Amino acid sequence: MDPIFPPGVTAAAMDRALKAFARVVGAENVFATAEDRDTYVDKFAVDEGRHHAYGAVAPISTEEVRAIVKIAAENRMPIWPISRGKNLGYGASAPELSGSIVLDMSRMKKIELDLESGSVLLEPGVGFYDLYDYLQAHKVPLWLSVPGNSWGSVIGNALDRGLGYTPYGENTTKLCGLEVVLPDGDLVRTGMGAMANSPTWNLYRYGFGPAWDQMFVQSNFGIVTKANMWLMPEPEQVRGMDVEMDLPEDLGPLIDTIGALRREGLLQQSPTIGNWFRAANILTTRSQWTDKPGSLSDEVIAKIRKQFGLGWWGVSLRLYGRESVTNAAYAILEQALQAIKPMAIKPQLWRRGDAMIPSQGGWYGVPMTFPMQNINWFGGRGGHIGFSPILPQSGKLAVEQFHRTYARYKEYGMDYQASFAFGERHLINVNALLINKDDPAFLKRVDPFLRTLIADARKQGYGEYRTHLDYMDTVADTYDFNDHALRRLNEKVKNALDPAGILAPGKSGIWPAAYAKERRS
Amino acid sequence: MDPIFPPGVTAAAMDRALKAFARVVGAENVFATAEDRDTYVDKFAVDEGRHHAYGAVAPISTEEVRAIVKIAAENRMPIWPISRGKNLGYGASAPELSGSIVLDMSRMKKIELDLESGSVLLEPGVGFYDLYDYLQAHKVPLWLSVPGNSWGSVIGNALDRGLGYTPYGENTTKLCGLEVVLPDGDLVRTGMGAMANSPTWNLYRYGFGPAWDQMFVQSNFGIVTKANMWLMPEPEQVRGMDVEMDLPEDLGPLIDTIGALRREGLLQQSPTIGNWFRAANILTTRSQWTDKPGSLSDEVIAKIRKQFGLGWWGVSLRLYGRESVTNAAYAILEQALQAIKPMAIKPQLWRRGDAMIPSQGGWYGVPMTFPMQNINWFGGRGGHIGFSPILPQSGKLAVEQFHRTYARYKEYGMDYQASFAFGERHLINVNALLINKDDPAFLKRVDPFLRTLIADARKQGYGEYRTHLDYMDTVADTYDFNDHALRRLNEKVKNALDPAGILAPGKSGIWPAAYAKERRS
Repeated sequence: MDPIFPPGVTAAAMDRALKAFARVVGAENVFATAEDRDTYVDKFAVDEGRHHAYGAVAPISTEEVRAIVKIAAENRMPIWPISRGKNLGYGASAPELSGSIVLDMSRMKKIELDLESGSVLLEPGVGFYDLYDYLQAHKVPLWLSVPGNSWGSVIGNALDRGLGYTPYGENTTKLCGLEVVLPDGDLVRTGMGAMANSPTWNLYRYGFGPAWDQMFVQSNFGIVTKANMWLMPEPEQVRGMDVEMDLPEDLGPLIDTIGALRREGLLQQSPTIGNWFRAANILTTRSQWTDKPGSLSDEVIAKIRKQFGLGWWGVSLRLYGRESVTNAAYAILEQALQAIKPMAIKPQLWRRGDAMIPSQGGWYGVPMTFPMQNINWFGGRGGHIGFSPILPQSGKLAVEQFHRTYARYKEYGMDYQASFAFGERHLINVNALLINKDDPAFLKRVDPFLRTLIADARKQGYGEYRTHLDYMDTVADTYDFNDHALRRLNEKVKNALDPAGILAPGKSGIWPAAYAKERRS
Repeated sequence: MDPIFPPGVTAAAMDRALKAFARVVGAENVFATAEDRDTYVDKFAVDEGRHHAYGAVAPISTEEVRAIVKIAAENRMPIWPISRGKNLGYGASAPELSGSIVLDMSRMKKIELDLESGSVLLEPGVGFYDLYDYLQAHKVPLWLSVPGNSWGSVIGNALDRGLGYTPYGENTTKLCGLEVVLPDGDLVRTGMGAMANSPTWNLYRYGFGPAWDQMFVQSNFGIVTKANMWLMPEPEQVRGMDVEMDLPEDLGPLIDTIGALRREGLLQQSPTIGNWFRAANILTTRSQWTDKPGSLSDEVIAKIRKQFGLGWWGVSLRLYGRESVTNAAYAILEQALQAIKPMAIKPQLWRRGDAMIPSQGGWYGVPMTFPMQNINWFGGRGGHIGFSPILPQSGKLAVEQFHRTYARYKEYGMDYQASFAFGERHLINVNALLINKDDPAFLKRVDPFLRTLIADARKQGYGEYRTHLDYMDTVADTYDFNDHALRRLNEKVKNALDPAGILAPGKSGIWPAAYAKERRS
């Protein structure tokens, strides 16, 4: 790929900056050839050239990150930090602002375990597999909460508010104290880490005064170089069930039943209801069922569901803890779910010492990548993009959202993949759009389709929890209370902390003054 | 009391500002007589004149708060927001910077209930009693998590990271979306409230991008005028036990036993271990037992313990939820506690519909004030000041902290009141110092005593989670990583948001540039 320079940066200035970076990390860790540029492309993007890095620099330590940031600030060179660059569906390793230098922290892989408290201090390069291997090798009875694509970074997932499958599922809620390089190169530790040599950095989140952790999440205020994360003690037993519901409208009672149990705390894991397609598209490809373009017909859907024994909706519910306690809770769970007449209830039981069923690893903190198989749905070059508005935990509203969204999928000729992920009091309606990168006509429909979905959601007052680079400005724009008061606040802080505007300009729709005219929406 | 003006403010400027305030709130809601000033004094302070408001202004609405803030900024008049001013032991309604105008929000008492999700949108003037009465009047089966002094503000407690007794005990963790007036008068809503008319403001905390809620906690970055708080669904059953341990060293195994159950999630409430004195000093007065100054002798302690049947340490453990589930968990709890041979285990059981034992109201979300009776310990004008470092959840370290602190209490001739409050992975070692305001010699020892405790804790790497106005600078000073990097960050943001430095200068040791020379430590 041809190089693209950031706004206002000359080839000479770029050359100067890259040389300075090389003095910090060694020339072998500065990447700026055409091939290097291709490496940092968002392979899932509709238009891979839209967020195009000039190159990358890969530090090995916090001190190197600080040195890079100072050079970037001196040279007014935008940098885009990534942990491992596997934020697939949201931009992967590509920067928002083309021409940015990717700050690639995948070489930073230190793990420090505090066994007694059940927490780890991690660097951004530590992936779920790395951490899992470490815990296995040291026979540590602590479990991860892995996302469907587990080759990404543990910290990276938490910093984009990604979701796992256990009671520790919302990884961002298990962060406890960060080390952060600020845009001026200063180094701060949050929470109790703000005290030098405190033994409680990984134990109490807030410290004294305002607490910063969540200000560095989905943020361009600083670069997280270390984070403490809490891990779940291995339970004595995991007991639960996989539930299939036959009809589209069964979504309503299913949500209301699970939601009540979740809010009262009987169910502490955050389950995800998925439609039949979410389960099926990792098991088969489209051409095995139809050669027709447009959304799959009801007839084809019925055939696929029958083949794999899938409900229109399915959900896995799990209780974690002592045998006697989870057995008592299971009886209540079973009664509640039987009452809404599922198509099938498949009981599941794991006891400490049992082998794990590989396809069920997510419930036991075992990393996995097989859900990524869905990008093979069209049998060629695939990808997916997420559309994920937050909803109230209401069956009625979820069913309405389902009908509204499904109609749009049909209108735009897309195959409908939806899930509803429970938090304690909210639902995230994660819709994945599987794309066919070998079909130009299809690709053309993607952008108007997603913009329509975002606008539909906005009308209901639903905002997205996370989005692809292409839609950061658009989504930020929907957060419009008091004429975008939160954006004013974010950008006031951004300009105070990062006057040169070098750190991830445009991330989450936050633009520093230096690049204000790059805002899209 | 004679008026004290804020630094650099003339009587004429003050007069101008008060008149402008009166135009906003009505003259009847501006308070600046000598009697008014006495009202906003910290009655528990060793030196009541040290944090002396010039007067107060009491708005009824967010719009009035915004208008007051704009006037304050124009006139460079420091204001000190309070919810209900009941932060006893930490400064009550008094400002850090003498001469400040107290912004008294106790008239702002709106409550909006969302029954389905179990949350309330509250204004700062709503006290625990107000909210309890509201829920009772409307027969709403949701429980509060009340602190020992329940006449304070629900929001105020959460915003100072105060603690309650139920599984919802750390009230700050149950905040979900704030409305905040910024120091320039702008109005922001955090989380999903950043989208106008979003039905999920009270359901999902983070919104899109950096999340601000905890930045307005223990903070002077903005004035919280509304907050969503989650309430606990009334459980079917509360089952548990009150445990007494005989010897000082029993603290170690007690902490290790409870800590393991807390971390694994069997115990979800955050219990507080208290020493015998914490239980006894609300039941009796000192003169009934001794007329000797200095710390109580072992002989007197033994007599008091015998009279009231108290262990050296006691703790109440409670399980909340379904009958069958809490019964199963209770059996495990009982076995674990029996194993460390307590002096006494008193089982406790409450089932939905049962009457509550008044002295146990805290476990059932019923507001109370009787723990405040401890200020009568010396039989005259009393008060208390807290010293509350964060510790790891380790019996060994807690016992060491106990010995170290108890020795200091004896050295300074104070009666030792200590508790160890569990979080999920930390302990807060809340020490209350009961003071005798009629004993000048006693009062003179208080300040050197507390400074010694703070310094002792710092040596161990323990920082306080909350402190009295007198020690905000001192405690902030102990958060010293990278030459006080967090303070630099806080003050950079403070100056960006509040260039005139009008909002609560000095709160949590954060001083705006305009008042930088007022920093004490």
